[in-house]
Amino acid sequence: MIEVGIVGGTGYTGVELLRLLARHPQARLRVITSRGNAGTPVDEMFPSLRGEVDIRFTEPDLDALAACDLVFFATPNGTAMKMVPDLLARDTRVVDLGADFRLQDLATWADWYGMEHACPELVAEAAYGLPELNREGIREARLVANPGCYPTAVGLGWLPLLEAGGIETDRLVASCVSGASGAGRAAKVGTLLCEVNESFKAYGADGHRHLPEIRQSLEQVCGGGVGLTFVPHLVPMTRGMHASLYATVKGDPGDLQLLFERRYADEPFVDVLPAGAHPETRTVRGTNLCRLAVRRAPESDQVIVLSVIDNLTKGAAGQAVQNMNLMFGLEETAGLDAPAVLP
Amino acid sequence: MIEVGIVGGTGYTGVELLRLLARHPQARLRVITSRGNAGTPVDEMFPSLRGEVDIRFTEPDLDALAACDLVFFATPNGTAMKMVPDLLARDTRVVDLGADFRLQDLATWADWYGMEHACPELVAEAAYGLPELNREGIREARLVANPGCYPTAVGLGWLPLLEAGGIETDRLVASCVSGASGAGRAAKVGTLLCEVNESFKAYGADGHRHLPEIRQSLEQVCGGGVGLTFVPHLVPMTRGMHASLYATVKGDPGDLQLLFERRYADEPFVDVLPAGAHPETRTVRGTNLCRLAVRRAPESDQVIVLSVIDNLTKGAAGQAVQNMNLMFGLEETAGLDAPAVLP
Amino acid sequence: MIEVGIVGGTGYTGVELLRLLARHPQARLRVITSRGNAGTPVDEMFPSLRGEVDIRFTEPDLDALAACDLVFFATPNGTAMKMVPDLLARDTRVVDLGADFRLQDLATWADWYGMEHACPELVAEAAYGLPELNREGIREARLVANPGCYPTAVGLGWLPLLEAGGIETDRLVASCVSGASGAGRAAKVGTLLCEVNESFKAYGADGHRHLPEIRQSLEQVCGGGVGLTFVPHLVPMTRGMHASLYATVKGDPGDLQLLFERRYADEPFVDVLPAGAHPETRTVRGTNLCRLAVRRAPESDQVIVLSVIDNLTKGAAGQAVQNMNLMFGLEETAGLDAPAVLP
Amino acid sequence: MIEVGIVGGTGYTGVELLRLLARHPQARLRVITSRGNAGTPVDEMFPSLRGEVDIRFTEPDLDALAACDLVFFATPNGTAMKMVPDLLARDTRVVDLGADFRLQDLATWADWYGMEHACPELVAEAAYGLPELNREGIREARLVANPGCYPTAVGLGWLPLLEAGGIETDRLVASCVSGASGAGRAAKVGTLLCEVNESFKAYGADGHRHLPEIRQSLEQVCGGGVGLTFVPHLVPMTRGMHASLYATVKGDPGDLQLLFERRYADEPFVDVLPAGAHPETRTVRGTNLCRLAVRRAPESDQVIVLSVIDNLTKGAAGQAVQNMNLMFGLEETAGLDAPAVLP
Repeated sequence: MIEVGIVGGTGYTGVELLRLLARHPQARLRVITSRGNAGTPVDEMFPSLRGEVDIRFTEPDLDALAACDLVFFATPNGTAMKMVPDLLARDTRVVDLGADFRLQDLATWADWYGMEHACPELVAEAAYGLPELNREGIREARLVANPGCYPTAVGLGWLPLLEAGGIETDRLVASCVSGASGAGRAAKVGTLLCEVNESFKAYGADGHRHLPEIRQSLEQVCGGGVGLTFVPHLVPMTRGMHASLYATVKGDPGDLQLLFERRYADEPFVDVLPAGAHPETRTVRGTNLCRLAVRRAPESDQVIVLSVIDNLTKGAAGQAVQNMNLMFGLEETAGLDAPAVLP
Repeated sequence: MIEVGIVGGTGYTGVELLRLLARHPQARLRVITSRGNAGTPVDEMFPSLRGEVDIRFTEPDLDALAACDLVFFATPNGTAMKMVPDLLARDTRVVDLGADFRLQDLATWADWYGMEHACPELVAEAAYGLPELNREGIREARLVANPGCYPTAVGLGWLPLLEAGGIETDRLVASCVSGASGAGRAAKVGTLLCEVNESFKAYGADGHRHLPEIRQSLEQVCGGGVGLTFVPHLVPMTRGMHASLYATVKGDPGDLQLLFERRYADEPFVDVLPAGAHPETRTVRGTNLCRLAVRRAPESDQVIVLSVIDNLTKGAAGQAVQNMNLMFGLEETAGLDAPAVLP
Repeated sequence: MIEVGIVGGTGYTGVELLRLLARHPQARLRVITSRGNAGTPVDEMFPSLRGEVDIRFTEPDLDALAACDLVFFATPNGTAMKMVPDLLARDTRVVDLGADFRLQDLATWADWYGMEHACPELVAEAAYGLPELNREGIREARLVANPGCYPTAVGLGWLPLLEAGGIETDRLVASCVSGASGAGRAAKVGTLLCEVNESFKAYGADGHRHLPEIRQSLEQVCGGGVGLTFVPHLVPMTRGMHASLYATVKGDPGDLQLLFERRYADEPFVDVLPAGAHPETRTVRGTNLCRLAVRRAPESDQVIVLSVIDNLTKGAAGQAVQNMNLMFGLEETAGLDAPAVLP
Repeated sequence: MIEVGIVGGTGYTGVELLRLLARHPQARLRVITSRGNAGTPVDEMFPSLRGEVDIRFTEPDLDALAACDLVFFATPNGTAMKMVPDLLARDTRVVDLGADFRLQDLATWADWYGMEHACPELVAEAAYGLPELNREGIREARLVANPGCYPTAVGLGWLPLLEAGGIETDRLVASCVSGASGAGRAAKVGTLLCEVNESFKAYGADGHRHLPEIRQSLEQVCGGGVGLTFVPHLVPMTRGMHASLYATVKGDPGDLQLLFERRYADEPFVDVLPAGAHPETRTVRGTNLCRLAVRRAPESDQVIVLSVIDNLTKGAAGQAVQNMNLMFGLEETAGLDAPAVLP
């Protein structure tokens, strides 16, 4: 059994991680910290975990965390980078669900996140935790930067086309939506039910932190610069992320359906739908799956990719568990095999 | 007072029309027909109209309809074209909220709607009912083809840019969403609450009937061919439509914000938001407004337009009333001035 | 035109009041205060009011408020009572949408609201603002205590039966639900979309502030003590309140349907549905209506009353405007006649 | 491995059963029939089951079903009773998720379900499948009548009080709500998103089929007649059921909290919450749990019980699997141990 710690488990990413670990066959939650809720039983804050998790939140304590084999950071950006060096020094491996280690370019990171990096030397070492792109790197990593939700949905959608050189890369458009859980569990007027419910809007159209992260992945794959327009939208639901990806075909990319099916044939968490289908976010709710559809736009040289994930699972906690499985040589799907609850 | 008839008023477009006409200062509902519900009091089917509408649905009856000044068709496609010639012959004017008279190209219409047109000679006469594009034509029309909801939201979003020649027209992308009321009030598994709720999906990505209609409007404005990718999505809410429009800037279009504000300065139902804003569908719920925002994508030559309407109001019944107001020389905003109920 | 001021207009009750006043034919909003948002244009905070309200929030200023004919308080409990004496002294009338003047028993008020009353001498003077119960008192009042939402829905439901002496009063049960807007626009975890959506729960089963207020009204009507069990529930929607009322028939109350229809025959805002109907909250959304149904439980001596209102309209801002209309001798329905937007 | 068949698996109960069986460690789905969808792959109708279920719907075929150890009927009322005798005769056991075998009184059944029973001789044999009330009977049954959702939520809520004789039984009130999935997956206007969303209403207040079933259970427990008022309501969400139960205390029932905790101490699927809590339906979503809270109403002789289940799981398919586990001597919780996905 792998002994696991969580730093900052009171948000939506945290409770999803708790749910997945509660039933993981080879991991055991040993400690969970929360500065503001130390002493509170986990299942008092999250009654859905009554009978599943019987420990309390504690104050952050390096010794307790360092006694774990792996620590997940489900913390605001800027928190993990202050504690990670000490943990690594004590041979505890880390998966950071925040953004501290996602961007290789430190200046870009500082620009978007508004602070200086506390341990720049570890950024280069960190493995970007998108297994479909970087499985071997993750297996051997001490430190994994778990990707953002939009970068996961968008990256998996364009991966086959970029690898095949099948699309122009100067004017990619990613029009994406997220359920409100992506905005977290903090008390904010903007995510009250009465503000989100029965409405739809874009946000961050002038720049969103996931833009440089998406671009970094795409450029890594295609080996050159990428022009990307990315607009996220807020959809009145709790979970789910949908990326609608638009690009111009380059040359003759052949059978797009086949290209996608072959690329993802061995991927346990990527499901290419039959031609003509439209993926629904509810079919991946609470699962670590990404479901994809690809098609040519009618009467056009455009290719459309539709990609859905659960922003809290494949977009956060599920992918973190997948990364843990890889890092510790477990079955990659361990603890991640429950189908979606539908309807 | 204008005497008004409605053919087919039991759907969502119908009840919206009933609501708007109930409080219209210069229109009086005289007859409403429904083959399946003849005899039923309107306010029994729609209790929200108790105390507002005190007539019953009747069987379609040409004499009763022809006694009206204006007849609205809120019917399935293919119904209006069978009755319109007789009504016009008897000097009753018509606003068709269906698609029978929207496409000027008869072959295209037959392709998309799967039937032959019953009165092709009237198609050329019909005025396309987007007042912001065709106000004078509507004023004098006997027959108005009320636009589709997507064509309204998308058309108003690109109008200023196309008129100014400020965008390339070969690779336009319209990524749009609609609330479930757009699918109508017919009993279908696909729009049950349990199928739509807490999920998001695209539909019609391989071709949607509004595609040729949007293209027709855009081509009329820019005077040439247009390459358009249009993907509609279903969002888990009742009302509201959001269009996210992506295009490549051509030449130097100048200050986009100013361009939009000037274009719509005198339009009573188009509201250009301040720079940096993101329109929310809820702010136009139940109103005849289109709210717009325009911006350059960050670090890019792309222009992003965000456009919201209520699919049942500006996207259907409200615009129909606006067209009636124009046709009869009334104040254009008559009966259409209530602000959105928010939250 | 009546000149109107609002104190504390940034919550959901405030924006509903703004919407109703924007279109009121005989009232003009002159000043709206908000300590935290002074200087902000109203329509920047509430874009649904663009083109409708063109003033800014200001700091609370007694002179500006006293220059109005009427001031609405849409403030947290305990605020109005500090300012009301000065306003009344300067001949400005007041409708308090909070709870400061609702309970005639000062000790009970202090118990439930956790503070001493700042102007106990005005409590007795205040008219309880339920027009169906106290129309004449309201007409002449300087100060109206606008009822709570639950007391309105429950009170109107039991009024005919209590007046007729048709039910036992010792074991009344009111099982009620409210949309999330009843909890206000403050940033709280408990009313985030992700906490409320797709869930249903009771709250306040051990005691809710509306319990003594409901009891006060019921006891006033029946002239004696009342035993009441009141459980409110939170329903995943924005607006709407539903009261399910259970009581035991006393003696022979006769035709319940007729009793209700007669009692409310002249009430402009109470609509008794036909026998057998079940009122839906959506049919009163955004309106000042209460819709009611009454029936005997099958094979039982119990009577069931179902009562729906919009918690923000008849349950708050709409009733406040109705009270203003009464206080100033206007048509009681002025500004309150728009039907519900449905669906 | 138990070989399992399903008759009629295209509704919401069916897909929930499919989900639970897909991961059940000791059951294997062998055949699933659907008259209208024979030939369709299960995972084409329910894409959430891609990779989980790889068989097709077939025409109902007695031989194929009789080759199973157990057949679940997830069919409209009146279907199971026609096939059950043949299956039992061939030693295949049955769990009927419909109502055919729920009511012991045949006349009452005929009244409420509007047909004559096809195999009255089997009704008496059928075990009522509420394990907390009838575990031993289920273990040995050939035929289990799986309870309705309301009877499960209400029955579990009153069981401890009735067994202890702690409440008056002449005037029980059950004010209950259900998510829309309780109305099934048939195409009906009444359960369209646009009809249910953002609204709340009672239904069936003049009589609901679950009324005699609830009464039968309660009377069995308390050994005498019961006076029950039962009003179900429709809540705008997909899954979840909440029962608010009101009764008058009889004598001195002692510590209610303790009474409940003791009664359910050994029940794997009943969770008594700490005193003062209010159960939320989302904490049991997709699980087989019933969560309960009990309290005295403030200043009253009334006792309030709040009970939540997932109407499709403990209220239908989950309880059916629990019954299967009991019938075949498996661990009672097998296949039913995943915690709720929250938020």
